[in-house]
Amino acid sequence: MTTIQADAPVATLINVFTVEPARQAELVAALNQATEQLFVGIPGFVSANIHASLDGARVVNYAQWASPEHFQAMLQRPDAQQHMGEIMRIADNTEPRLFIVCATHSVSAATTPPAGR
Amino acid sequence: MTTIQADAPVATLINVFTVEPARQAELVAALNQATEQLFVGIPGFVSANIHASLDGARVVNYAQWASPEHFQAMLQRPDAQQHMGEIMRIADNTEPRLFIVCATHSVSAATTPPAGR
Repeated sequence: MTTIQADAPVATLINVFTVEPARQAELVAALNQATEQLFVGIPGFVSANIHASLDGARVVNYAQWASPEHFQAMLQRPDAQQHMGEIMRIADNTEPRLFIVCATHSVSAATTPPAGR
Repeated sequence: MTTIQADAPVATLINVFTVEPARQAELVAALNQATEQLFVGIPGFVSANIHASLDGARVVNYAQWASPEHFQAMLQRPDAQQHMGEIMRIADNTEPRLFIVCATHSVSAATTPPAGR
């Protein structure tokens, strides 16, 4: 289970993959395998959450790293680059970006106030 | 706080907004306001989590609805359409899609097995 909180000490990576619907399941499997085999063991990894769009055209990895620096250090690793290269042979495009959680709103808990922006 | 779980009975909406960096904060504020004033009270709303990219060019709403039908019903409401129209006067583009959570991976808990795809 992953939690989203406005004040959590994590860097949030949201990576949007564009994919042919016929290859969406293959991309999901490749992301799950790469995460289990490699990314969970890299320093600073907190979580990865693999999502498949109902229309088949997107896969989103909602991931959390301990800091932007941990994420940037991971990008420099040859083993991570190899896994990402394999994933990009399945996906048509990848759009990874780091985010901050500005606010969370929920019917089951109090709203978290915006965190400074 | 929002939780991401592979077996949760929710429809996940990931809405990626493209925005001029100079207007990112304005877009975040508009989404927070619309959520608090309207969306939290609409039947089927579970959560909304507003994210701002560090590069300024994107805002992502990671939201949860009780079902795809609840989300589709919301889209038909005139009050929701009005709020979304106001948001689209700030954003350059919006790409809303419904997703399922295929798998979650975490260093702090056991990995959830892929949910059928």
